[in-house]
Amino acid sequence: MTAGGRQPVAILGATGAVGQRFLALLAEHPWFEARELLASARSAGRPLRDACEWLVPAPRPAAAAELVVREVGAPVESALVFSALDATVARDVEETLARQGKTVVSNASAWRMDPRVPLVVPEVNPEHLALAAAQPWSGALYANPNCSTIGLSLALAPLVAAFGVVAASVVSLQAVSGAGTPTRRSLELVGNVVPWIAGEEQKLESETPKILGRLVGSAAAGDLRVEHAALEVGAQCNRVPVPEGHTLCVTLTLAREARAAELVDAWRSFRSRPQELALPSAPDPVVIVHDDDASPQPALHLEAGGGMAVHIGRLKGAGRTWRFTTLSHNTLRGAAGGALLVAESVRAGA
Amino acid sequence: MTAGGRQPVAILGATGAVGQRFLALLAEHPWFEARELLASARSAGRPLRDACEWLVPAPRPAAAAELVVREVGAPVESALVFSALDATVARDVEETLARQGKTVVSNASAWRMDPRVPLVVPEVNPEHLALAAAQPWSGALYANPNCSTIGLSLALAPLVAAFGVVAASVVSLQAVSGAGTPTRRSLELVGNVVPWIAGEEQKLESETPKILGRLVGSAAAGDLRVEHAALEVGAQCNRVPVPEGHTLCVTLTLAREARAAELVDAWRSFRSRPQELALPSAPDPVVIVHDDDASPQPALHLEAGGGMAVHIGRLKGAGRTWRFTTLSHNTLRGAAGGALLVAESVRAGA
Amino acid sequence: MTAGGRQPVAILGATGAVGQRFLALLAEHPWFEARELLASARSAGRPLRDACEWLVPAPRPAAAAELVVREVGAPVESALVFSALDATVARDVEETLARQGKTVVSNASAWRMDPRVPLVVPEVNPEHLALAAAQPWSGALYANPNCSTIGLSLALAPLVAAFGVVAASVVSLQAVSGAGTPTRRSLELVGNVVPWIAGEEQKLESETPKILGRLVGSAAAGDLRVEHAALEVGAQCNRVPVPEGHTLCVTLTLAREARAAELVDAWRSFRSRPQELALPSAPDPVVIVHDDDASPQPALHLEAGGGMAVHIGRLKGAGRTWRFTTLSHNTLRGAAGGALLVAESVRAGA
Amino acid sequence: MTAGGRQPVAILGATGAVGQRFLALLAEHPWFEARELLASARSAGRPLRDACEWLVPAPRPAAAAELVVREVGAPVESALVFSALDATVARDVEETLARQGKTVVSNASAWRMDPRVPLVVPEVNPEHLALAAAQPWSGALYANPNCSTIGLSLALAPLVAAFGVVAASVVSLQAVSGAGTPTRRSLELVGNVVPWIAGEEQKLESETPKILGRLVGSAAAGDLRVEHAALEVGAQCNRVPVPEGHTLCVTLTLAREARAAELVDAWRSFRSRPQELALPSAPDPVVIVHDDDASPQPALHLEAGGGMAVHIGRLKGAGRTWRFTTLSHNTLRGAAGGALLVAESVRAGA
Repeated sequence: MTAGGRQPVAILGATGAVGQRFLALLAEHPWFEARELLASARSAGRPLRDACEWLVPAPRPAAAAELVVREVGAPVESALVFSALDATVARDVEETLARQGKTVVSNASAWRMDPRVPLVVPEVNPEHLALAAAQPWSGALYANPNCSTIGLSLALAPLVAAFGVVAASVVSLQAVSGAGTPTRRSLELVGNVVPWIAGEEQKLESETPKILGRLVGSAAAGDLRVEHAALEVGAQCNRVPVPEGHTLCVTLTLAREARAAELVDAWRSFRSRPQELALPSAPDPVVIVHDDDASPQPALHLEAGGGMAVHIGRLKGAGRTWRFTTLSHNTLRGAAGGALLVAESVRAGA
Repeated sequence: MTAGGRQPVAILGATGAVGQRFLALLAEHPWFEARELLASARSAGRPLRDACEWLVPAPRPAAAAELVVREVGAPVESALVFSALDATVARDVEETLARQGKTVVSNASAWRMDPRVPLVVPEVNPEHLALAAAQPWSGALYANPNCSTIGLSLALAPLVAAFGVVAASVVSLQAVSGAGTPTRRSLELVGNVVPWIAGEEQKLESETPKILGRLVGSAAAGDLRVEHAALEVGAQCNRVPVPEGHTLCVTLTLAREARAAELVDAWRSFRSRPQELALPSAPDPVVIVHDDDASPQPALHLEAGGGMAVHIGRLKGAGRTWRFTTLSHNTLRGAAGGALLVAESVRAGA
Repeated sequence: MTAGGRQPVAILGATGAVGQRFLALLAEHPWFEARELLASARSAGRPLRDACEWLVPAPRPAAAAELVVREVGAPVESALVFSALDATVARDVEETLARQGKTVVSNASAWRMDPRVPLVVPEVNPEHLALAAAQPWSGALYANPNCSTIGLSLALAPLVAAFGVVAASVVSLQAVSGAGTPTRRSLELVGNVVPWIAGEEQKLESETPKILGRLVGSAAAGDLRVEHAALEVGAQCNRVPVPEGHTLCVTLTLAREARAAELVDAWRSFRSRPQELALPSAPDPVVIVHDDDASPQPALHLEAGGGMAVHIGRLKGAGRTWRFTTLSHNTLRGAAGGALLVAESVRAGA
Repeated sequence: MTAGGRQPVAILGATGAVGQRFLALLAEHPWFEARELLASARSAGRPLRDACEWLVPAPRPAAAAELVVREVGAPVESALVFSALDATVARDVEETLARQGKTVVSNASAWRMDPRVPLVVPEVNPEHLALAAAQPWSGALYANPNCSTIGLSLALAPLVAAFGVVAASVVSLQAVSGAGTPTRRSLELVGNVVPWIAGEEQKLESETPKILGRLVGSAAAGDLRVEHAALEVGAQCNRVPVPEGHTLCVTLTLAREARAAELVDAWRSFRSRPQELALPSAPDPVVIVHDDDASPQPALHLEAGGGMAVHIGRLKGAGRTWRFTTLSHNTLRGAAGGALLVAESVRAGA
């Protein structure tokens, strides 16, 4: 804790799009303050303002602009670390920091399916955070799920609780802002649909059952673990020419029959630990249900709840089979904002 | 038949986008020649070149440009009529022409679900054309299906024949060129997804089982009719900022188990009456199966087979459950080109 | 003035995109409160929430949602009226209201070039507001300029003051959100450039010299009037597939030679009456000068100053010839926000 | 010359977007046949079909698909070489080939401003080809201009001949397909304008006067050279979200007064050596003048003349000052097709 009261934080991958989102969110954060920035050798040695072009539609924070970027691997002082590193380098770097006693919230895919690492959407499975106590490192490692998976999990969680969910078929229409390293394919996105995103379908299919899984065993007995939910997810992922916002078209099979009003009620009444604790980044309501024909839309609805809410619309179906559309902000709720809410949950003992 | 050999044809709604597509296709057609143009009162009385802005990415045919547009309702001489009228006016106008002995191929939704009217994708259900013989009019009325439905039917037909299909869940990513009358919503499409298209889901869900249905009864007994296929279609339709080309993400339940190679083989070997008769607008191959990761794409693949082929990619699954992506040209195969192939089939006695 | 302190305001054309922007801005406004909503007969008789789809990327204000929309022409109680009517109907309706003693701030093009009506960008020509005192109506009529013209005027004003401007050549790249009534052409905007916007070039060319003109004569002598600036503007306007934000590429001929640092200094030091009076909608700074290569961009910079600032970038040139790029928010600064700042200026006696 | 009659050709950078355009064009070319493919080490050793994803909206030629890609630097047998290499590597590789006696047509910027190298748009300055005879290499090196410059030169050439042109102010709205190596910025193009393209403005400003320059001196005297035109070009270049087609908004100062009909006549009557020789890639007409309000548009007009024509529209002005919009295909006329027409001109002795 600093004199001024805000806890210093280190950002790994601070010069990229997600790293910059962390900086923008932390600029006004009541609990955390960006104090250390780390990135690749290419950016190191310069203040942030000279180390990268600013890519985020929010002002570059004046204080962060003057912080000198250091190379990833340099010693970190802050006890809390947000990582926006690429999966390829994230694994080793993040484990080293956890060994050194740091609390690391990782946005990379590297650790997500590791059984020792909680994969957390704080409204959905806050109890999974307890898994970190049994980790072999003096620090702790928490994983933020894939951007599409976060939206899907938030849409499913209230239905899982109320009715059970047996299977989900998901078609995504994903924005370009989550595309990471641009490739030749980036250029093809104008006026086009690319019906594939490397690794994305597998992430949706494997991460969702872990997030919706049940914490079993006990820390005392040394067998605390997540039992994955018996939920079959099938995904088809598309990149569409939209700047921000992932739209998912979902077909669900519930465990028991339900009526539309019951589904809407389950969504609208959904509140969880982050809302009870009034965490700084927690949206309230969590789920916004639209009942007009043509919602939700990326161009109209993404900013609700500070970009942390999830939108539902176009509900139709009957009995155990339902179809709906969900929309969430992929670089706020789906990346930096989601990771921040994990850190807030850890600190608040959610 | 004219002296020069080409059969004169009338186009209803000739000044709109689909009407213009008809004109572009007929400019070089070996059998048919656009000779009469009809449109709303607003365009009537002027040669086509002055009656409308040219909206199609193909040159405006010089001959058609000089034809004077008459108001819909004026007497038609041609025995064959292509209609690109809005559904609201199409019903009465087209029936009147059929009563007058004309052969009408309609692109409107007005007649599609009428049990007396064949709803035809010539490679899928050419035998349905026989239904017209029993119509109560001295002429005949044929309906061209909805643009998305045509792509879906072509993708399903080979699988229906080989394995049976029990259910299809479809999410569409549809281009703006098929949007018809523009609304305030058209403007919202830039950088956006609109998760709804008026009436579209219902069309996919109801038209597909009719197209894939079986012709039963007999003309002699006076009970010739289509028995709709026992295929449950569930659709979620989205408008995306793509100029041309409808992408469909399909999840299928087959009637029996199959292997991926069998599905691919069923698609690749699919040929039908239009290919056997080498009709002028018939693509060959009908179905193009892509096996690389990121195909099919609207920006790359739409022109194959003169815009009349259907593309399949991203096949995955096992047993009875399969997922794939299909792409087709919505204003060629899905509108003017499809209707033209119906007329060719009728004339060739397909 | 109401008991609660906020002045009631009527909105004409309240159900359209600009009308909705007015409502969103007024929801939190310290001085004005939307109390009367008027629109076409089609929307009349229903509360706003049922009268139109909400088109603006900001929440629909709860209070306004319950106001019942009346037909344009119904009696208006509020002394202040914001008009977002189409130019075709605006002229008569607005004059009638002015005759009835209302203060009307019009966003339509109908009155802009009328010599009796001040055409005002409050930072550029606040002194023109005085023109209203000599109007033949008991009320007053103020015109908000065209959306592109506002951005251009704000970019030119500091240079006019410091160096004089002889000629401006302007190429616009305009967003779709300003397109008003959608046409067949709206659909063509995806992946396209349309090199023409009806009437737009003429507006830029004629309105700019009026705004930058000098108030001459005197009210006492009855010859108060605007002498248009001797500035030749040539414009080429394009619609591009961008949701929000008009980009203008400007080539200028100054009246005297200047250095780049002098231009930047003129822009950066530009403050005017709205800033001095700290009007609620006044941005400060007014002009934001970017010195990196690739700014300003619609996707990154539009929100600065609440969407009311103007951005300058890519300055290059020498002597009397300069080129730069300017960006402004077309539906905030260029429409509802600009009109609101006019009303604030009138009330504050700017 | 091969037995079959077509001259074998080598393509450098064959796996990239421009290289693939060369392959697509050569597949049906009457004179030239792609026989050798060279690219970076990453692609070498594999047949083209496995060496790269196919990026071009035309079928991948079956014959070229089987050619094994070799690493740039490997010995080349073909006497004619098309180079689509990046400027960074092009210079050395191309000079080496010219020293070895090859005829090299380069699409890179490396050699364009070298006084020994003809920078050729075959309809504009075919006489410049003669410059190659005086080159210090046993082979010859020809440069294809920048994609925007080609469109501008074709639009200006008829006016230069008829009236003289003193100055041109150009604002470009450029498609993404010409963007070369994608960067983080590629992702920002969806729904955005980026008001800058590295090096592009300088290319338009310097290349145009060379192309429009006069060949002076004589080969005999050893002082054959290009005297650049006394034409001042000022450019502002923007990237817009359009898949293909560069739109330029031009303001011109002519050397003498003219009337609109004279400009149109100069454009419409423009024919040059490639048209006289009926070269395989020569469009006829070269310049297409549109007189409706909203043309030319990338979505409607790019395919004219096989993508080799240049479009003019929106002409307005008087006396010596004129404004118009020009459109050309940036990867056909502006890259592979343009280079091919240079090679055809060389072979035909244009």
